[in-house]
Amino acid sequence: MNKPARVAVTGAAGQISYSLLFRIASGQLLGKDQPVILSLLEVNVEAALRALDGVVMELADCAFPLLVGVEKHTDAQACFDAVDYAFLVGARPRKAGMERKDLLEANAQIFSVQGKALDAAASRSVKVVVVGNPANTNCMIAQRNAPSLAPECFSAMTRLDHNRAAAQLAARAGAEVKDIANIIIWGNHSSTQFPDLAHATVSGRPALDLIDSDWYEVEMIPAVQQRGAAIISARGSSSAASAASAAIDHMHDWIFGTAADRYVSMAVVSQGEYEIEKGLVYSYPCTCQDGKYQVVERLKTSDFARTKMKETEDELKQERDGVASLLP
Amino acid sequence: MNKPARVAVTGAAGQISYSLLFRIASGQLLGKDQPVILSLLEVNVEAALRALDGVVMELADCAFPLLVGVEKHTDAQACFDAVDYAFLVGARPRKAGMERKDLLEANAQIFSVQGKALDAAASRSVKVVVVGNPANTNCMIAQRNAPSLAPECFSAMTRLDHNRAAAQLAARAGAEVKDIANIIIWGNHSSTQFPDLAHATVSGRPALDLIDSDWYEVEMIPAVQQRGAAIISARGSSSAASAASAAIDHMHDWIFGTAADRYVSMAVVSQGEYEIEKGLVYSYPCTCQDGKYQVVERLKTSDFARTKMKETEDELKQERDGVASLLP
Repeated sequence: MNKPARVAVTGAAGQISYSLLFRIASGQLLGKDQPVILSLLEVNVEAALRALDGVVMELADCAFPLLVGVEKHTDAQACFDAVDYAFLVGARPRKAGMERKDLLEANAQIFSVQGKALDAAASRSVKVVVVGNPANTNCMIAQRNAPSLAPECFSAMTRLDHNRAAAQLAARAGAEVKDIANIIIWGNHSSTQFPDLAHATVSGRPALDLIDSDWYEVEMIPAVQQRGAAIISARGSSSAASAASAAIDHMHDWIFGTAADRYVSMAVVSQGEYEIEKGLVYSYPCTCQDGKYQVVERLKTSDFARTKMKETEDELKQERDGVASLLP
Repeated sequence: MNKPARVAVTGAAGQISYSLLFRIASGQLLGKDQPVILSLLEVNVEAALRALDGVVMELADCAFPLLVGVEKHTDAQACFDAVDYAFLVGARPRKAGMERKDLLEANAQIFSVQGKALDAAASRSVKVVVVGNPANTNCMIAQRNAPSLAPECFSAMTRLDHNRAAAQLAARAGAEVKDIANIIIWGNHSSTQFPDLAHATVSGRPALDLIDSDWYEVEMIPAVQQRGAAIISARGSSSAASAASAAIDHMHDWIFGTAADRYVSMAVVSQGEYEIEKGLVYSYPCTCQDGKYQVVERLKTSDFARTKMKETEDELKQERDGVASLLP
């Protein structure tokens, strides 16, 4: 039996974690031969800690053979001690009357603390995925506060948008989703994101040969950008199971590699690829191999695409400027 | 690629299904080579149908490669058309002021309709697990209303109790849950159930040699019987993820077989084993092979055990008598 992997999950008593933890503990993240210790973080508030107790009781009640330990923490550094993987799910949600700037700052506080804690305590090869919104900027703050960890340890999740775009394309093209490849989500996990089908294929054929550009530009792009709101409207609460599933996909592919000739969307620290400002956490097409991601470079981009890529970059710059005081 | 399997889930917009559907769709029930069609049933009420829409949207958004179809139904017979597996999760919950008799009757109505629908429409080798409470009696009603299906097609879930007992024993014995074997849950999935450790082992050693009988009889048995209430008290809502996980375990072991020398707990139609009244749906120790379960017979039972086994049988008889008018 392998040595147990330590997996941290923050916001552990929340709805996304409730869909995520049981899939990790059942072996869907790391496979059937890898024991897991879950290290869970919650805020030190009575209601959250009671709910966390309930989740931990239910994890025990599943009798998962691979789950060899569950820890409850309210201190980030204790939670991140020697962790191999970290899902940063918890974030301050927007409350009625809250300005966007206040939301950014409240989260910047959380993620600067968590970045410092990862820096101090996590495995030197930790893989971090930020799910809590605003995910890209939260990730940037955590990464900048963790100078002793490689920037390549950090990522933010745009895989949910990626999967949503794949599902929309499959439905439109009358194909199965497994036959869709090379969707790209560029930029921010927000309504400015750019879901790009220019390189996508359906059973190997260019997607844009199979669908009309009107549907793509006028219907699909906004549908993917606004999908979160559509889910809230139907369910009465925000996407949880699909967000958790995307987080599993993101981390699983990062660890075990992407399929040959396929890329996935991951928001990572920009090195200036595609003329995006260095240091922003920007979603790019990526391939993964041997536990490392690589941005797919030199794809041809149209004027239409470059305009969209710039719009979402501009939003990320604004977010960064809004939290400048917390960036070392 | 195999022909897709048809999996029905009732109460599809509820909390247990929200934890169950994504695990089925991701391949955890039937494995990585088996495409799945989910056939979902909900009551014809606006709020439930909106919520179901949201769940179906999220299932699409996961881009599960094995999920080749999702159907929404409000008619049981349409839902169960040619299904290979059925998870009967939906049931009428107890409302404030509702008498137990009213609850039994309301559910008996639902499950007699569903039994008839399975009888008319399902695969002749369908495997049914009833999760919705009172699960054993609901299962009996469905089975009695499906005379053209073998009684062995029907079961009710006591695997959650089984897993809970295994977790409690592991914690007490300082062992890992994977090293626990041969827990038995006898009888009804209710507070009269009898979690029996007389045949249980911890790493091959008799469990009762490792723990004191006081803990077993005075603490553990009531703790397992009352675990559902403890979860509600902590979480503020009832067990969902752990119930879904147990439902996966139950059906997975039934389909793919139990490990050698290990048994699991399943509530099945009694053939009179252990002098339990024939025709009741009673939880027994079972092994599974080639897609069939078999009750483990001729285990030695103490006076203590027989008293407990009888108590839970008596409750099942009372439940049956309460719904006699709906039993063909």
